[in-house]
Order: sequence, then C-alpha cells, then structure tokens
Amino acid sequence: MKKRIITISREFGSGGRTVGRRVAERLGIDYYDKELIEKIAEGTGLSEAFIREYGEHAPGKNVFSYSFLGRTANGMSMQDYIWTVQRKIIKELAGKEPCVIVGRCADYILRNREDCLHVFIHSSLEKKVERIVKIYGETSDKPEKRLEDKDKKRSVNYHYYTDRKWGDARNYHLSLDSGEFGIERCVDIITGLVE
Amino acid sequence: MKKRIITISREFGSGGRTVGRRVAERLGIDYYDKELIEKIAEGTGLSEAFIREYGEHAPGKNVFSYSFLGRTANGMSMQDYIWTVQRKIIKELAGKEPCVIVGRCADYILRNREDCLHVFIHSSLEKKVERIVKIYGETSDKPEKRLEDKDKKRSVNYHYYTDRKWGDARNYHLSLDSGEFGIERCVDIITGLVE
Repeated sequence: MKKRIITISREFGSGGRTVGRRVAERLGIDYYDKELIEKIAEGTGLSEAFIREYGEHAPGKNVFSYSFLGRTANGMSMQDYIWTVQRKIIKELAGKEPCVIVGRCADYILRNREDCLHVFIHSSLEKKVERIVKIYGETSDKPEKRLEDKDKKRSVNYHYYTDRKWGDARNYHLSLDSGEFGIERCVDIITGLVE
Repeated sequence: MKKRIITISREFGSGGRTVGRRVAERLGIDYYDKELIEKIAEGTGLSEAFIREYGEHAPGKNVFSYSFLGRTANGMSMQDYIWTVQRKIIKELAGKEPCVIVGRCADYILRNREDCLHVFIHSSLEKKVERIVKIYGETSDKPEKRLEDKDKKRSVNYHYYTDRKWGDARNYHLSLDSGEFGIERCVDIITGLVE
C-alpha cells in the first residue's frame, strides 16, 4: 500500500529531525515537529516549553522522582494526560493530509495503519557528539552525558507507553545510520520508498 | 569509506539469506552462507549438519541444558570452540576478497572494520509464517513456534558472545523489513549503498 505518512523516531544528535524535515520538503508534504508540540500545548493547555521538555518522559511513581510533575484534577499523571492528548492529535493528523511526524511514539500510535512508513534514525556516539556540539554548542554538561540522558528518557517513555524496546529494528520498517550514510542519502532512501 | 564486505543478520523466515545471495550476485562478489558452514566444519573437524544445527546456539551451563553439547579435550564448551574457529574464519574471509557473509555474528566480529556494511533483515510474523511454510513446508510444529524457537536461539547466542541485543537497530548500519519492501527492493537499497 502506498505510504502517506512517515514517522521518524530518532536518537538525540542523529540528525533525524533534519532528515524528517528534508523528506517532507522533498515530497511537498506537511512536517510535524515544532507544529506538533504547538498542537499538544494547545490541546492540553500546557506551555510549549513544558511539552518540549517533559512530553517525552515517563511518569515518576512518587514526588521524589525527577519525572513527577504532579497530577491533573481527576488524578491522572501529567505525562498520562499529555500522552492521551498527543495520541489523539497524532491519529487525527494521520487521518488528514500526507505528512512526516517526528518522535512522540508516532510509530506505535499509528502501528495499525498500513499507509505509514516507520523509520528509525541513529548514529555512532562519535558522530552524535560532533553534531550536538556543532548545533547546540558547548554546555557545562559533557556531550556524552547529554546524549545519554536524553535518549534514556525517550527510551523509558517509549517503553512505558508502548511496552516495546526503543531502537529495536523490528518496530520500524527501516532503520538508518545517518552518521554512516549522511543526511541526504537517508532522505534519498526514504523518499525512494515512498514515491 | 567504500564498503567491501556486507554482513547480513536475519530473522528466520525473513528471506535475509536470499537478500544476501542476490546482493552478492548483483555485485559479482562471493557469498558465504553454506560455504561458511563448510569452512567452519573443516576448521573444527565437526560435521556440517552439526554446525548448521548448533553453531548459532549459546552454550548451556550444565548437562541438563538443551544446549549442552559436551566439551573439547581442553575443557572448552563445544560452542565456544565453534565460536573461536568461526571468528577466525570470518576475519580471514573479510581480509581477502569483497564478499557477503550471512549470520554467525559477523557484524560483531567485523565491527572494527570500516569497510563493512552491516545489515539486519526482519519481517512481520505473518509474512515470515507465509514464507517458511512455502519454503520449508508444513511440519508437526506450528510455524509460529518454529520461528520463535529459531530466533530465540540466535538471540541468546548473539547476546552470549557479543553482549549486545540481537535486532537492536544500532548494531547495524541498515535494517530493513523485507516483508514490507520485498526481496528485490531490499537488494536495490543495499547495492545502491555499496556501488
């Protein structure tokens, strides 16, 4: 079946977002990354900064956990609340125009739609370090630590909501090492499979 | 760096062996699958049937384990012995002509060579069942059970000798769902990345 929707899951620093954006440009379809965060913020009534920072974390079990962000009036954890809204928005988006959706477990949320191509973008530690220092600059944290923290949180969030292992090749139709092939080659392969 | 060696890891029933053979034919390079088993049999003095059946298992800890196959004269488990010979042969092969090597942890054994492209081929359960019934015929075991057993053994063997998770996208440069794309499309993508 022809693929209308492309979901991109990505390691932090792999350039997966850039791959997603370029694929959308090349195919002339919508691209949801920042726009998805805006929609989730609107849907939840929370700030975009909050969604960006915590939307890919799993809920902490108690107030001592770093991921404990409080509860909604009906007792739902903040992350469960974000998850519910995000799931609804992603399903709605996929039902409309063809698009590229980056992150936020979209591969899992849309797993039963046959018109989706699910892609995972990863890269070697060395190449990711090079990329995040170039793009986000130096900070007090070592780049290796930032990479590990970010991916650890995504991985825990993914596992919590999907009961799958993040980064397992079998969750995606296609997994690519962007450090090995370069961004443009990844875009070529993805668009080649869709066009 | 130009890729001279292609390693193919594959789920049982995914058609990964066929992908490997076709890639080798298309590129006009050697293909090691059956030939690798012959070499390992020759190097170990064990039969080809034995290597085929047990070469991708991990050693059992005691005589009650299904994978306990006895020990060599110097106390090495049979699987460790096969592993040592197999590792040596795979390294030697990679040092010679360009080739495609299927299975046997070649991706891990050759992980430090920059001239290797490491590929993982997987497929949905439904498509794998369809394929193994077509190719290997019906048996008394349910096809789902055969698939699960075979991949479980490969996965345990891989983890035992490499300390990595079998099927994790990050172990490979490229992972492809052959059930989704078909064998020929997988061959196109792989050869396109090498040529």
